[in-house]
Amino acid sequence: MADTKETITEGVEALTLNGKPESEQVETGTDAQAQEGVPEAPAEDVVDPWNVASSNDAGVDYDKLIKRFGSSKIDADLIARFEKITGKPAHHLIRRGMFFSHRDLHTILSLRESGKPFYLYTGRGPSSGSLHVGHLVPFIMTKWLQETFDVPLVIQLTDDEKTLWKDLKVEDAIKLARENAKDIVAMGFDVNKTFIFNNLEFMGKCPAMYQNIIRIQKCVTFNQVKGIFGFGDSDIIGKIGFPAAQAAPAISSTFPFIFGNKKVNCLIPCAIDQDPYFRMTRDVAPRLGYPKCALLHSTFFPALQGAKTKMSASDQNSAVYLTDTPKQIKNKINKYAFSGGRATVEEHRKLGGVPDVDVSYQLLKFFLEDDIKLEEVRQAYSKGEMLTGEIKKLAVETLTPIVEQHQAARKLITDEVLDKYFELRPLQFGS
Amino acid sequence: MADTKETITEGVEALTLNGKPESEQVETGTDAQAQEGVPEAPAEDVVDPWNVASSNDAGVDYDKLIKRFGSSKIDADLIARFEKITGKPAHHLIRRGMFFSHRDLHTILSLRESGKPFYLYTGRGPSSGSLHVGHLVPFIMTKWLQETFDVPLVIQLTDDEKTLWKDLKVEDAIKLARENAKDIVAMGFDVNKTFIFNNLEFMGKCPAMYQNIIRIQKCVTFNQVKGIFGFGDSDIIGKIGFPAAQAAPAISSTFPFIFGNKKVNCLIPCAIDQDPYFRMTRDVAPRLGYPKCALLHSTFFPALQGAKTKMSASDQNSAVYLTDTPKQIKNKINKYAFSGGRATVEEHRKLGGVPDVDVSYQLLKFFLEDDIKLEEVRQAYSKGEMLTGEIKKLAVETLTPIVEQHQAARKLITDEVLDKYFELRPLQFGS
Repeated sequence: MADTKETITEGVEALTLNGKPESEQVETGTDAQAQEGVPEAPAEDVVDPWNVASSNDAGVDYDKLIKRFGSSKIDADLIARFEKITGKPAHHLIRRGMFFSHRDLHTILSLRESGKPFYLYTGRGPSSGSLHVGHLVPFIMTKWLQETFDVPLVIQLTDDEKTLWKDLKVEDAIKLARENAKDIVAMGFDVNKTFIFNNLEFMGKCPAMYQNIIRIQKCVTFNQVKGIFGFGDSDIIGKIGFPAAQAAPAISSTFPFIFGNKKVNCLIPCAIDQDPYFRMTRDVAPRLGYPKCALLHSTFFPALQGAKTKMSASDQNSAVYLTDTPKQIKNKINKYAFSGGRATVEEHRKLGGVPDVDVSYQLLKFFLEDDIKLEEVRQAYSKGEMLTGEIKKLAVETLTPIVEQHQAARKLITDEVLDKYFELRPLQFGS
Repeated sequence: MADTKETITEGVEALTLNGKPESEQVETGTDAQAQEGVPEAPAEDVVDPWNVASSNDAGVDYDKLIKRFGSSKIDADLIARFEKITGKPAHHLIRRGMFFSHRDLHTILSLRESGKPFYLYTGRGPSSGSLHVGHLVPFIMTKWLQETFDVPLVIQLTDDEKTLWKDLKVEDAIKLARENAKDIVAMGFDVNKTFIFNNLEFMGKCPAMYQNIIRIQKCVTFNQVKGIFGFGDSDIIGKIGFPAAQAAPAISSTFPFIFGNKKVNCLIPCAIDQDPYFRMTRDVAPRLGYPKCALLHSTFFPALQGAKTKMSASDQNSAVYLTDTPKQIKNKINKYAFSGGRATVEEHRKLGGVPDVDVSYQLLKFFLEDDIKLEEVRQAYSKGEMLTGEIKKLAVETLTPIVEQHQAARKLITDEVLDKYFELRPLQFGS
């Protein structure tokens, strides 16, 4: 495990793999605790592309994270400017703080004001064939941004990353990428404005991708990826080189069939654990003559067991899958969704529940679009008027039709439909 | 600079970048020497993909190198078997010991005996637009092997490597690769049996290449490339990942358009400084279910200044270029070719010259095909019957027509001719 601190040009403190500066690592816990195998609570939240963990029931402290990562908070002023320029209310995921942090979003808004183009870039690591509802979140935001700004979108499936990090063969990772792409396409992205690609196949179709990877890999040392990602000497060389593959799509010349040789700005909606990749990208891009990518960061989608970790496709019971039946959804939420309610009905009526730690309430915050109803639920639950069983029922009623509609839409995604998104071709820009 | 020793599975001692085990590095020279900037002679020959240097006028001690690298000497028995199976005399570069070392050449000969296929793989790093005569050597051998065994050949131009190691842009490295390819094609390789590719473009045409690179990069740690190539923490991540790109063509599935899904053995003729890449490749291939590549190692082509270093395209005066005029060749050899002759004619007549350190004689060993004449020259020069001016004249007379014929052949290589070699297509195997 790396523990070297290194200054990052973006001006934030370097993070080790577990997200703690070296100095703090020494002080947590005692030898006695460690020897007896008592699991110790991390002193600080752990947030990196491979791990998310918090000791707090309400989850990661996002204000602290903004400070540590050196990003900016999405505040009322920014939302007001956003709404003024787009001429419509901001998405509820922005208004409710699920997208809470950004880098250079003002630059993107200024580009829009002066009629200049930009494009969207997001992605997914295909580690599992079935997505869970949390996986929808960045794509819901991306789709809304695409519709709001009428801009092209590129979606990267990092099947190479999953081959390198998991016990997964190249062939199987490619299959998972295609399965995941079907779920993404089922969300209704406009094929004329959306290009989807998986690295293990796209690399062999577009020389510009590898050429930009080499340009990026020429600008980044092992010391730097050690500081940013916590790589160590016993890591495989594939991992060490990979960050360049996630960085390349943030540079418009990676897609000559879309952008020609234009230098187009890029906005990346993603969960904040992906920020290290793009801090690196933002360091490199100007050295290659390209603008720094802008970012829109989301919070993590909580595991059913609570916000201490994020929902994971690898843990059956932590997630509501997009393939779950209504009965499975009901059972999972009833059985596993961490409750902010009290031990007895009497106590609950008297003291009220705690929505901030209640996973059913969190699910509603993500998926219940009706602001008024959500506020009613929050108040009723906080006052003890609404019981745990009732808020769970509402969460089930909210999620079930979303999952059912998704399943219906996904059935229509044939290989033929999918192939169109993967085809290298020009995309339509907005007027 | 790395200085960690690590066991290499091939069973040879690990080399640091300068080719010396750590223990010896401490003992060479004194602080006083270092402070005064006195250049110190290396205790052992330096041989790695980026540096070749010896303190001996006769050049690198190749017997020692065989021991250090763990390869095998090409001995009389192997040459006899080679000649028996091919039914013709071995090439003079083999008979004269310019190709002196191998790995698993017996396996390749056994494959041939039992009528099973193999292919040839060689390459070049395009760091300069104009090649020198020494660059012809591996290709002369490769062409002879291709004709002798009637097998397919793949030639890799590592323009990605040169972009990463040199102050060279992607676009310029690609141009150099094409210029170098014209020189290679001018040597008369059969287009029906030869595929030439440059990594910066081939990667974007053949998904199998990147997929095999990922498979290889999954099997190799930073510690390993540190031990094999001497990479350090301040090296760029592009360098750290690159060895996989040179390894991939030794695995036949990198070329599905040639080999389908057949697992075909590979023989690599190359200068011995490239061996570290293929030691790594030989470790990895069996883990991917492929045979280990066989190797045929050449000595280095001496610089005009003497065999202490190899001829370099980056040093104008160390090399006879394929673009040189007859006058330039004559002047360079007369002016720079290190002489094994004596200080005065009288002394030379009395004591005789030393062909082993005489660069003109070395040039004749590489390029004068007539064994009888070469032996006459060796004897006459050793006895002092032949003077330095005379052996230089013979070297000029031998090299000049080779360079002139090459220039004439190269003129005929149009972009159209060249493109045929770069086209992804099946190749003809021997009957």
